[in-house]
Amino acid sequence: MAAAAVALSNGSGGDSKAEFAEIYSRLKEEMLEDPAFEFTDESLQWIDRMLDYNVLGGKCNRGLSVIDSYKTLKGVDVLRKEETFLACTLGWCIEWTRRGQPCWFRVPQVGLIAVNDGIILRNHISRILQRHFRGKPYYVDLIDLFNEVEFKTASGQLLDLITTHEGEKDLTKYNLNVHRRIVQYKTAYYSFYLPVACALLLSGENLDNFGDVKNILVEMGTYFQVQDDYLDCFGDPESIGKIGTDIEDYKCSWLVVQALELADESQKGILLENYGKSEPESVAKVKDLYKELDLETAFHKYERESYNKLIADIEAQPSKAVQKVLMSFLEKIYKRQK
Amino acid sequence: MAAAAVALSNGSGGDSKAEFAEIYSRLKEEMLEDPAFEFTDESLQWIDRMLDYNVLGGKCNRGLSVIDSYKTLKGVDVLRKEETFLACTLGWCIEWTRRGQPCWFRVPQVGLIAVNDGIILRNHISRILQRHFRGKPYYVDLIDLFNEVEFKTASGQLLDLITTHEGEKDLTKYNLNVHRRIVQYKTAYYSFYLPVACALLLSGENLDNFGDVKNILVEMGTYFQVQDDYLDCFGDPESIGKIGTDIEDYKCSWLVVQALELADESQKGILLENYGKSEPESVAKVKDLYKELDLETAFHKYERESYNKLIADIEAQPSKAVQKVLMSFLEKIYKRQK
Repeated sequence: MAAAAVALSNGSGGDSKAEFAEIYSRLKEEMLEDPAFEFTDESLQWIDRMLDYNVLGGKCNRGLSVIDSYKTLKGVDVLRKEETFLACTLGWCIEWTRRGQPCWFRVPQVGLIAVNDGIILRNHISRILQRHFRGKPYYVDLIDLFNEVEFKTASGQLLDLITTHEGEKDLTKYNLNVHRRIVQYKTAYYSFYLPVACALLLSGENLDNFGDVKNILVEMGTYFQVQDDYLDCFGDPESIGKIGTDIEDYKCSWLVVQALELADESQKGILLENYGKSEPESVAKVKDLYKELDLETAFHKYERESYNKLIADIEAQPSKAVQKVLMSFLEKIYKRQK
Repeated sequence: MAAAAVALSNGSGGDSKAEFAEIYSRLKEEMLEDPAFEFTDESLQWIDRMLDYNVLGGKCNRGLSVIDSYKTLKGVDVLRKEETFLACTLGWCIEWTRRGQPCWFRVPQVGLIAVNDGIILRNHISRILQRHFRGKPYYVDLIDLFNEVEFKTASGQLLDLITTHEGEKDLTKYNLNVHRRIVQYKTAYYSFYLPVACALLLSGENLDNFGDVKNILVEMGTYFQVQDDYLDCFGDPESIGKIGTDIEDYKCSWLVVQALELADESQKGILLENYGKSEPESVAKVKDLYKELDLETAFHKYERESYNKLIADIEAQPSKAVQKVLMSFLEKIYKRQK
């Protein structure tokens, strides 16, 4: 499955986007003037270029949704200047990673320095949080939140890496349970839960009281990723902007785990023989099997059931503002074609 | 220069070491049962092996010095059980990184998964701190401390990487100032300041009142690393347990920056032509030049002056207990031969 970078179209007006973009420059400037290190000219230039290359270029949906969610929770259309700044800052902390660029380590002269740059990017989040939130009553909760979400994301990434390990292709490792864990931990927490949790903390809420909200958002993130897997094979390449290669890449996609679930022995044989091969004939055989097993219908059934459950869970939320936040996420992803 | 892993011999009795070792197993167990992730059997085994491979095998001098420093600050020989546990836990947080093993990524089947494992190791530190220190009044200071020291270390590492960049050897980048910054940020903060800062926080102290102590420890760490650079070339390979290769490796060593400082134009030519080459004749020419410039005397002068300044600064400390902590560090490294 591809990362969720295909991402949500978002409801923020042009204003939010412009405000958000402006604040990047300020945060970068602060990182380049951080008194915790005596930069040389060369290291300043390096960090400057590394930040622009990696952090910029995404759609910033996760970051922007902090601002939108915060506005909804407060019930206002316009935030005060300081509130906008803090919301944008947390948004950028979520975006402070590689977005939509070819791998940094492939850039000439970079190579394995990229590993250390990844550490520096992560450190910047802590530096930004310390500088702007150290005095806030929710500072500790904010740090714990970013730490916990990062741990979940890295653990999900590990599970993905060891499950789809190059060189020892083993389809028996793939099942719905493993797929759900990879998707949930690798993507759903940081893409769906983290922005809303940031907005809740900004609003002075205690996250311990929002366990259901967490579950709903994680469920939504899982649903989003299942769509992603589905569209990779059945979507319109024109709409999604790329030609899917999950089959060739031996991905632990929702489609292949469904197929393994439904296949009889001879159909399993077709999968074992052809999944993960780049030859067009192998890919075609897998796609034919997906059609034979009617995975399109299975997906639409999953989509409908998941949607109905999400709607019911959202309506059970006691706060109208929270319902509105959750609905705005759901509306952006339900039945999306890209 | 090699990392400071050559490290301090330490004054802890066998008891401290045994206690310390035991607590590793408990912390590892906790990491493998962390409810923030739903481990599969395979991911459990992976983390288990990854931890043992990377975290174990060092001399644990940094970790053990948290316990020793804490005892000295409290003025006791024996800590209560809970105090021992907390001190050992912070010690392990400093050791929770690769120590004394060949690179993990070179192990078969690991490869680039090692990058993600590095992130998980770092996340473990946050998980451990949260689990055992969340309720302590100094929890925020502890997190800020680890974050700041990590940022300094990664920034120092970046400076080292871009200064000694493979493929574009440029000795004009090497000077005493750059050398001091690399050494100070990459090694001194985490090896010398961090253990003592942990002990101070355990003792209920406010780190803002210990700016001088920080400076002294960073100075000591710098001094330690200059010794390391000196011993790489002039030390007895039998004593230091390896044959130095700083010249071949084009390292930004204290010796080469001193040589560049002292050399006339023709001597500079010899350096430019021979530094960073693996041929024995080139290495010999550089070593001859070091002798011609009498770097041994320059080093002993630096060592004496640095020692005298450190002694004076330590004696100016108002607290006898703090003096004792600092002296115990200094005694371990002054005039060491390995």
